[in-house]
Amino acid sequence: MSIKIALLGFGTVASGVPFLLKENPSKITEAAHDRIEITKVLVKDDDERNRLLAAGNDYNFVTNIDDILSDDSIDIVIELMGRIEPARTFITKALEAGKNVVSANKDLIATHGKELIELAKDKGVAFYYEAAVAGGIPILRTLANSLTSDKVTRILGVLNGTSNFMMTKMVDEGWTYEDALKTAQDLGYAESDPTNDVEGIDAAYKAVILSQFGFGMTIDFDDVAHKGITTITPDDVAVAQELGYVIKLVGDVREVESGISAEVSPTFLPKAHPLASVNDVMNAVFVESIGIGESMYYGPGAGQKPTATSVTADIIRICRRIKDGNVGKPFNEFVRETKLANPADVKSHYYFAINTPDKKGQLLRLAEIFNSEDISFEQVLQQKANGTRARVVIITHSMSKTQLADVTAKLEAVEDFQVVNTLKVLGE
Amino acid sequence: MSIKIALLGFGTVASGVPFLLKENPSKITEAAHDRIEITKVLVKDDDERNRLLAAGNDYNFVTNIDDILSDDSIDIVIELMGRIEPARTFITKALEAGKNVVSANKDLIATHGKELIELAKDKGVAFYYEAAVAGGIPILRTLANSLTSDKVTRILGVLNGTSNFMMTKMVDEGWTYEDALKTAQDLGYAESDPTNDVEGIDAAYKAVILSQFGFGMTIDFDDVAHKGITTITPDDVAVAQELGYVIKLVGDVREVESGISAEVSPTFLPKAHPLASVNDVMNAVFVESIGIGESMYYGPGAGQKPTATSVTADIIRICRRIKDGNVGKPFNEFVRETKLANPADVKSHYYFAINTPDKKGQLLRLAEIFNSEDISFEQVLQQKANGTRARVVIITHSMSKTQLADVTAKLEAVEDFQVVNTLKVLGE
Repeated sequence: MSIKIALLGFGTVASGVPFLLKENPSKITEAAHDRIEITKVLVKDDDERNRLLAAGNDYNFVTNIDDILSDDSIDIVIELMGRIEPARTFITKALEAGKNVVSANKDLIATHGKELIELAKDKGVAFYYEAAVAGGIPILRTLANSLTSDKVTRILGVLNGTSNFMMTKMVDEGWTYEDALKTAQDLGYAESDPTNDVEGIDAAYKAVILSQFGFGMTIDFDDVAHKGITTITPDDVAVAQELGYVIKLVGDVREVESGISAEVSPTFLPKAHPLASVNDVMNAVFVESIGIGESMYYGPGAGQKPTATSVTADIIRICRRIKDGNVGKPFNEFVRETKLANPADVKSHYYFAINTPDKKGQLLRLAEIFNSEDISFEQVLQQKANGTRARVVIITHSMSKTQLADVTAKLEAVEDFQVVNTLKVLGE
Repeated sequence: MSIKIALLGFGTVASGVPFLLKENPSKITEAAHDRIEITKVLVKDDDERNRLLAAGNDYNFVTNIDDILSDDSIDIVIELMGRIEPARTFITKALEAGKNVVSANKDLIATHGKELIELAKDKGVAFYYEAAVAGGIPILRTLANSLTSDKVTRILGVLNGTSNFMMTKMVDEGWTYEDALKTAQDLGYAESDPTNDVEGIDAAYKAVILSQFGFGMTIDFDDVAHKGITTITPDDVAVAQELGYVIKLVGDVREVESGISAEVSPTFLPKAHPLASVNDVMNAVFVESIGIGESMYYGPGAGQKPTATSVTADIIRICRRIKDGNVGKPFNEFVRETKLANPADVKSHYYFAINTPDKKGQLLRLAEIFNSEDISFEQVLQQKANGTRARVVIITHSMSKTQLADVTAKLEAVEDFQVVNTLKVLGE
């Protein structure tokens, strides 16, 4: 006997699954209590099939999903195609056909996860997706199994390898955003349209999924504010370094009294913070909780083998649960009513870079505006006066998102002030 | 209905369990599918019981283990007394009485784990000990569940908070070993007899347990070479910094062709290595594997709440398995025949600090000795000549433990050479 699986898609990640089955057979077979056998692989069309066969891939390639859905011998369907369609339709049909499903598709799970999780529950089958967040880092299962006794208060994550590679170059080498993007594209880290990576959208998908496992709440993707790294200038990076910070694109999910808030934004991290030394394409998830206190989970956020390792761990778990007769247990059992935080409760320190006229009294004008919103300064730097314009950098004490919106509106209403950038600052 | 547990011991860690049950009741109860109730607490004698009662602790304190063993309503016994005896006897009796057992006792598990694991298996009960390695870091369950698809090739860990606090002070502040120890003792991190922490014994216990979960092999404690931090001088620290390294006490378990090797030793870590920024009392486990590649798990290695969080996660897992009817499953199912590596296969770069006479030709003499053992130099620094003695620092290319022993013997046989220190260097 063996457990029979089908792969939907045979791209980079999918071909990592056969790699693991071949390189680590005895451990995987013993853990799964059964041999795992890839019996069918769905590809787009005959051309792709012929190309893969010609390249020496010895699988039963099919081009119609029904060949998999109607095959009763297949226990688990592995979706590794990415994007929303046809993945959504295929997963839905597989669950409806009573198949267990493993997916690494963060876009889909963040936007349509609720209906798929519900469907899997109705059908009494498994729907697991460890690889959807931070690729090789086993963060979802760890939150579900090991932090089950703990109460998570905040999750901070470097969740996108492409933008982290770019920020590392911008911070360590002083590169501009444009240079960093070009190199990321040349190295194959960034796509020709890099929007999802550089605008924080990919990280926001992951923040949605982390909110479920960490806080038991399903925040809608549209409720995750995201701000990308496109506006970061060498000036911002240099000021951060001068003040003892490193700028990274950080996903931030936290619970305050009124509910949870999730956002992705470039963030000033104190140099001694564990996330500050997560560099290049690596990811990390930093968890604050009442029990453990502070813990961090670090590893590759993408890539063939890391992602396939998470996918295969999901497959093994399903095999074991099939034997145990409890395969219908949800991946994440921690569910509470979702409550969004009141922005007035969500507080951070902030960095403001403001251009002002280069004449006397500007700092007083700024101080009056911040003071009118009850915001006080932690650090102020006046820089780069050129006789016409000056640049003032302010790090504030803790202030709310409401105060942030209000003070930004007031600053922007002043004709001769220009708010160049506003970034969150993680307090020490 | 509720799941009834008994605590053996009511020290710092043990009282963290009631803290979590009180602060996080709904999540824990839902995860366990049942309320967890502490029904009995074993203390040493009537004096301790009276003292605890007087301090307002409202538990059923007992002074005889038989009161717990003979109580059929108790499902899980939590051993948090530490040391070998009476913990070993009590756990053995509890397992024999058909109780599930959770322990955080690394000393005991590293030295007598095999017999206890075997007994639990015979009795069909659970014996879990997540908290025994790196306190709050959920590393054992992560290795067992998430890295189950992966093949681990090396585990490097900062596994002892006390010595890491001391090394952090020695590296960042230039303190001597003696100053660091005194402060660690003043802060309550180090005991009056600090041997287990500073000589690497505590870390070696953890390396034994990591070898089971990471490699499926049970290495005997006596086969874990351990070298402590007592011989590290400010000179060693300064040279390390000059060459781009940080010295930390590192546990190192790896598999080479002939088998596994485990050792604990002060190690030169490249500054960019993720373990190099693990500071103060924090711990981290860095895993190299064929699937994920590199991952790291970071958090507090000790302390009341972190340890209690791991203990409570074990309790929840047992509760769930009781419901599922498979509580007898071992904590770690990955077991292979234990093979110890041939020292000739275990290779590292090494740092040598050698005092020589301060006269011409010493480097040539050293080079001849290293060359006779087929060891080549990566970096050489000649330091501190004072007209009588000079100090030469060598970083070698990769060499085996056999070569290390041979060259050290040869160096020590030369009357006017003095080998001041020899430390492992992690290659970039």
